[in-house]
Amino acid sequence: MTIDLPKTVTIIEVGPRDGLQNVSVFIPTDAKNQFITDLKIAGVKEMEVSSFVSPKWIPQMRDAEEVALHSLDNQVRTIVLAPNRAGIERALGSNCKDIAIFIGVSNSFNQKNINRTTTQAREELLPIVKELKELGCFVRTCISTAFYCPFEGHINEEDTIQLCQQFVQAGADELSVADTIGMAAPHESYSLFSKLTSLFSETLITAHFHDTRGMALANIFAALQAGVSRFDTSAGGIGGCPFAPGASGNVATEDVVYMLERMGIQTGIQLPLLFQAIEGIVPHLPKPITSSYYTLLQKA
Amino acid sequence: MTIDLPKTVTIIEVGPRDGLQNVSVFIPTDAKNQFITDLKIAGVKEMEVSSFVSPKWIPQMRDAEEVALHSLDNQVRTIVLAPNRAGIERALGSNCKDIAIFIGVSNSFNQKNINRTTTQAREELLPIVKELKELGCFVRTCISTAFYCPFEGHINEEDTIQLCQQFVQAGADELSVADTIGMAAPHESYSLFSKLTSLFSETLITAHFHDTRGMALANIFAALQAGVSRFDTSAGGIGGCPFAPGASGNVATEDVVYMLERMGIQTGIQLPLLFQAIEGIVPHLPKPITSSYYTLLQKA
Repeated sequence: MTIDLPKTVTIIEVGPRDGLQNVSVFIPTDAKNQFITDLKIAGVKEMEVSSFVSPKWIPQMRDAEEVALHSLDNQVRTIVLAPNRAGIERALGSNCKDIAIFIGVSNSFNQKNINRTTTQAREELLPIVKELKELGCFVRTCISTAFYCPFEGHINEEDTIQLCQQFVQAGADELSVADTIGMAAPHESYSLFSKLTSLFSETLITAHFHDTRGMALANIFAALQAGVSRFDTSAGGIGGCPFAPGASGNVATEDVVYMLERMGIQTGIQLPLLFQAIEGIVPHLPKPITSSYYTLLQKA
Repeated sequence: MTIDLPKTVTIIEVGPRDGLQNVSVFIPTDAKNQFITDLKIAGVKEMEVSSFVSPKWIPQMRDAEEVALHSLDNQVRTIVLAPNRAGIERALGSNCKDIAIFIGVSNSFNQKNINRTTTQAREELLPIVKELKELGCFVRTCISTAFYCPFEGHINEEDTIQLCQQFVQAGADELSVADTIGMAAPHESYSLFSKLTSLFSETLITAHFHDTRGMALANIFAALQAGVSRFDTSAGGIGGCPFAPGASGNVATEDVVYMLERMGIQTGIQLPLLFQAIEGIVPHLPKPITSSYYTLLQKA
């Protein structure tokens, strides 16, 4: 009696971008660069390294050019987030070729975050996807609030699927589909990801879970059963949840890698080296690391 | 695309016994009794309330008679743990009819915990099961180290199944099968519990997970798929892990109930009332509550 699971999983490390963007202080550029280097040494092969966002709104990422320059690497997919045309110009100007864009399914979420409706955001982004593809870029589309919205509550699965489909049709290489507030339950993870992997079999389908209510690993186990073999994770669980200060945000890379390796699923990441990467960034963080596996090793 | 899941789940609340037995201080009897009352008000229908163990070795449970007297209730299965004949005499003398016994699969674990080999413990306990059944008792057999042992490492599934079978044959009503050190991964949960529910379909099969490495909810989701509909949980996650001081132990009732209810599975437990029960015991605890859902509500 066994469950069908993939033999290997790709971890997309989002700590340097999604994590450090959401901490309350500016982390020195050298520390960010060392963190990125250490994560590569630990075996990370795909990583969000920075965001080309307005330094006025998100000063944590004001060194995006420097971090990108440091990070670009033929062996590692080095992803930068660019929310709009201005960001994309900067990203391309820094020789970045792996570009993440983002859009929420929820209208209210988009309005509060990017001051656009979902329709407006989509109409702005779909032509950008096509342009980036013509330039030979790898386009990762981050789909926020794919299950629940902090303002609207439950999101219809069909709305999420429809939005995904539009970006697939525009040429996106990857969909990173996020449970932004960590509220999805495993049956919802299974249901949505079964459909996405089945409908968009030519597109990389990545699951992005937050551990806000402790369900991230259960959701990952459900997504594995639904055919997903790519997960966004953040070393140390860095990042928190902007909608519940102090609560857990991004699921921790070490918790995911530990569970997957225990299940015989290869990730290519060496846990001892991952811990070294985390130890290097910890002194710069305003809050302690609370991931299960890190806490266990600290206290054992 | 859905996964077959049960419509209802029974929560066996172990906080008053397994939880409070493993905190470093003696909790006043009145506080224990109020905690038990509050948990019943929250909807708990089966509960481990105390242990008839030697007060010399486990002073936390020295008030077992008083707690049992307070707790016995025709509406709620009121379980007391009794590790040996001396404890069982005390339990029966206190009119307890729902008795838990325990044994590890691991030989080293039994030797360190109860100074007996697995064979010795089994030979002592199997006749006791029969005697208790003749007295009309409900017998819960807690099977420790069913997956991993802190001293021996991996435990063979066949050894766990064989031990379970012997207690089933002796007449045990329930097997509470425990991942004592929180090391089982979801595929192992699924594999073992699929076999147990299939082999012992007339016996209540309960899964007991620790959240030491954050995998408890994933393991519960796997066990649900394996046909398990009974879970041991501890309100507030009280109890810790005796093998890794400071790390999480018993999975928290609130985290489990929240996930199950989100999945449309009825537990009969009211989360707001469960929180009231936890708030009542928190002032007596030496350490803060660290469960995901409790932490979220405290910080939100």
